[in-house]
Amino acid sequence: MLERLKQEVYEANMELPRRGLVTLTWGNVSGIDRESGLFVIKPSGVPYEELKPQDMVVLNLRGEQVEGTYRPSSDTPTHLELYRAFPKIGGITHTHSAWAASWAQAGRAIPCYGTTHADYIYGEVPCVRNLTEEEIASAYEQNTGLLIVREFQERGLDEEAVPAVLCKNHGPFTWGRDAGEALRNAVVLEEVARMAARTEMLNPQVKPAPRALQEKHYSRKHGAGAYYGQKKK
Amino acid sequence: MLERLKQEVYEANMELPRRGLVTLTWGNVSGIDRESGLFVIKPSGVPYEELKPQDMVVLNLRGEQVEGTYRPSSDTPTHLELYRAFPKIGGITHTHSAWAASWAQAGRAIPCYGTTHADYIYGEVPCVRNLTEEEIASAYEQNTGLLIVREFQERGLDEEAVPAVLCKNHGPFTWGRDAGEALRNAVVLEEVARMAARTEMLNPQVKPAPRALQEKHYSRKHGAGAYYGQKKK
Amino acid sequence: MLERLKQEVYEANMELPRRGLVTLTWGNVSGIDRESGLFVIKPSGVPYEELKPQDMVVLNLRGEQVEGTYRPSSDTPTHLELYRAFPKIGGITHTHSAWAASWAQAGRAIPCYGTTHADYIYGEVPCVRNLTEEEIASAYEQNTGLLIVREFQERGLDEEAVPAVLCKNHGPFTWGRDAGEALRNAVVLEEVARMAARTEMLNPQVKPAPRALQEKHYSRKHGAGAYYGQKKK
Amino acid sequence: MLERLKQEVYEANMELPRRGLVTLTWGNVSGIDRESGLFVIKPSGVPYEELKPQDMVVLNLRGEQVEGTYRPSSDTPTHLELYRAFPKIGGITHTHSAWAASWAQAGRAIPCYGTTHADYIYGEVPCVRNLTEEEIASAYEQNTGLLIVREFQERGLDEEAVPAVLCKNHGPFTWGRDAGEALRNAVVLEEVARMAARTEMLNPQVKPAPRALQEKHYSRKHGAGAYYGQKKK
Repeated sequence: MLERLKQEVYEANMELPRRGLVTLTWGNVSGIDRESGLFVIKPSGVPYEELKPQDMVVLNLRGEQVEGTYRPSSDTPTHLELYRAFPKIGGITHTHSAWAASWAQAGRAIPCYGTTHADYIYGEVPCVRNLTEEEIASAYEQNTGLLIVREFQERGLDEEAVPAVLCKNHGPFTWGRDAGEALRNAVVLEEVARMAARTEMLNPQVKPAPRALQEKHYSRKHGAGAYYGQKKK
Repeated sequence: MLERLKQEVYEANMELPRRGLVTLTWGNVSGIDRESGLFVIKPSGVPYEELKPQDMVVLNLRGEQVEGTYRPSSDTPTHLELYRAFPKIGGITHTHSAWAASWAQAGRAIPCYGTTHADYIYGEVPCVRNLTEEEIASAYEQNTGLLIVREFQERGLDEEAVPAVLCKNHGPFTWGRDAGEALRNAVVLEEVARMAARTEMLNPQVKPAPRALQEKHYSRKHGAGAYYGQKKK
Repeated sequence: MLERLKQEVYEANMELPRRGLVTLTWGNVSGIDRESGLFVIKPSGVPYEELKPQDMVVLNLRGEQVEGTYRPSSDTPTHLELYRAFPKIGGITHTHSAWAASWAQAGRAIPCYGTTHADYIYGEVPCVRNLTEEEIASAYEQNTGLLIVREFQERGLDEEAVPAVLCKNHGPFTWGRDAGEALRNAVVLEEVARMAARTEMLNPQVKPAPRALQEKHYSRKHGAGAYYGQKKK
Repeated sequence: MLERLKQEVYEANMELPRRGLVTLTWGNVSGIDRESGLFVIKPSGVPYEELKPQDMVVLNLRGEQVEGTYRPSSDTPTHLELYRAFPKIGGITHTHSAWAASWAQAGRAIPCYGTTHADYIYGEVPCVRNLTEEEIASAYEQNTGLLIVREFQERGLDEEAVPAVLCKNHGPFTWGRDAGEALRNAVVLEEVARMAARTEMLNPQVKPAPRALQEKHYSRKHGAGAYYGQKKK
């Protein structure tokens, strides 16, 4: 079932330790098949060196496990809510990557200080508030997803233009058209988080990059006028 | 004698340089067999690339060398006192890993700023005081162990919930149910120390993570209600 | 056509990820054959692991593509303006390397704090201003090149003595006698940027290195009195 | 001639890039045969990947090249003065390793903040002043060596107890009983420099480690009462 998607999700998961984004088992990637409404996610707490494509767990959008002998990632209810609310995304990544998680622990959104950021993310990377005690006590992981969705709606953010979020005192989620793009956005976010921290160290009064420069770089890569990369076949 | 334990302790020691936790020979892992009351530790000052499982040194809980042609790690008396006082632990790791040792040199406990920390360590990582001149002059390594034990007792800390400590102007010790878990806790501590330092750089007024969030993440992984990872067979 | 130059440019491009200077596809190296007036550059957005020497794109100094099935790097018009204005250079590198890009995002020139810098770069690494909205709106990449050239002329900088520049809120360009030297100068710049940031962290009141020391180190490696390295055959 | 020493010096040089202490060709190790009064050093500006044991250059203590087709390292006159003035040392290393060079650029001695430092270096790592314009103009590299020697004498420092120095706005020299120990001390210095910088970041008011702790750790490894490591055969 969904063997190709499992392979894709498996490969994106294996990139996490190779890219230095996870320590031990702290991360997971999922991918969804929109036609069948089924998504595939890493099992919980299994070491990367032992992971195999067939270990991936399959669930439906009601959160019911459809295939797989392992328990899915404990963050599965968060992925689920994001897939439900953001119909244009096909893959999600969660990590505790050190720089992005440090911004999350600091409780700060990451300002757009340059073109590296603007090439992939439109405007700042938002940081959502802590869950309340009540939200933590019941359905913690689901409430994490619901909170992200609600804050995106309230702030008028488009999940395609802003494919990343920080959860306060926790860490980042990123997404994309498929598992591979979600993973690449996690790579981008960590690099952007690192450079933004160093930028502030070098210039504590620094301001975000001019809006015209941000727009230019985002539109070089996204939308009808994009001219970065090769033409799609 | 204790060949399986020696192999385990050897492998945990070899992970130290692979994980970037030690430079030259600055670290050691031990493991104990509670039934026989014997523990196994790395020999002192032997380069990791030359280390073999049979080089591990065996001692009893009176500190007497029972097997091995090498001298045990100079930190052996510290391990000994921890094994004596903390009956639930089965392995200990000592490193000078750069971020944890920097907090120790700064003389500061590591606050719990997020879920990466809370997943493994309950509350802050304590930093114990300097030894006095008298404590240094005689039985320095033993006194290091006794001090850790005494401060844990005085502060009412449970060694299972707080599997890590910093020794001021020196470096960290971590422990766990066995040598492998002690090693993994050393990996966690270094990552937590790195992220906490960067968190403070990004937000000098930052406060520890909300207590409810800390409790939630700790209890996801520990105790009767744990649901992270796979069911134990 | 220009097979040897393509090979050289290919190899310099492949050094970018090996040296840790690029993430994903964020960088490019070009090299020029001054006799024919043709230059060779990396194609846009092609992953390094798939790149082959024959994928390199050949253009003339009017910016017309002379050979190659791929689109050239989106930064090609910047390379073009630099080749036109700086007749002594034979290779150019552009990256978003993390430390150099952080100085660029901070909008700061890199002061010469020591001999590592002075060995390769005479005086500070300049940071050119943001483009205006008009300059961004039309021919953005070309205007980036024209701005660099204009600022070098206005400041009286010699492109041989100062083989590096930062573009505000973007990142660095470096150059040299050929593609290999341009790449090596990108390596040098990143290291110099890293050390300068740490120097300021350790001593916020630090001043640039004494002018006599800067001159000495630059002249050990450059010009008639150079005595570093082996005699050219 | 001196084939074994050449091999030793070659191997220590090759460790420089492996240990991350040098970028490009920025470093060199030498070793001396005290009986013949000849020392062996890396050739100038030769890439590490091309270096062979027979490329090492042999000189006498008058600075005359006795063997070798290459020019010796441009820093040779500094090594020479150190060998002349410090009869107990058998090897010297010079690098621009990033953290140690940053302290040198900041013009600051590295305080002893903990046992990692105290295990190898007695007290702070001194930073010697800039050379004067006159000292730079003639015999720059020789004057660098003479300055180090003079400052050690004036401050009453023992080169065995303090096997490292920083040259302001330049970088570190380290030494030891042979080339291998000089190299290991360069590794130690870089780690100590990194940790000291982070220690100050975490606690700007930090004081050096208590003198009794420094003495204890130094004497665990050095002198008649040493008990770290295995007995010498």
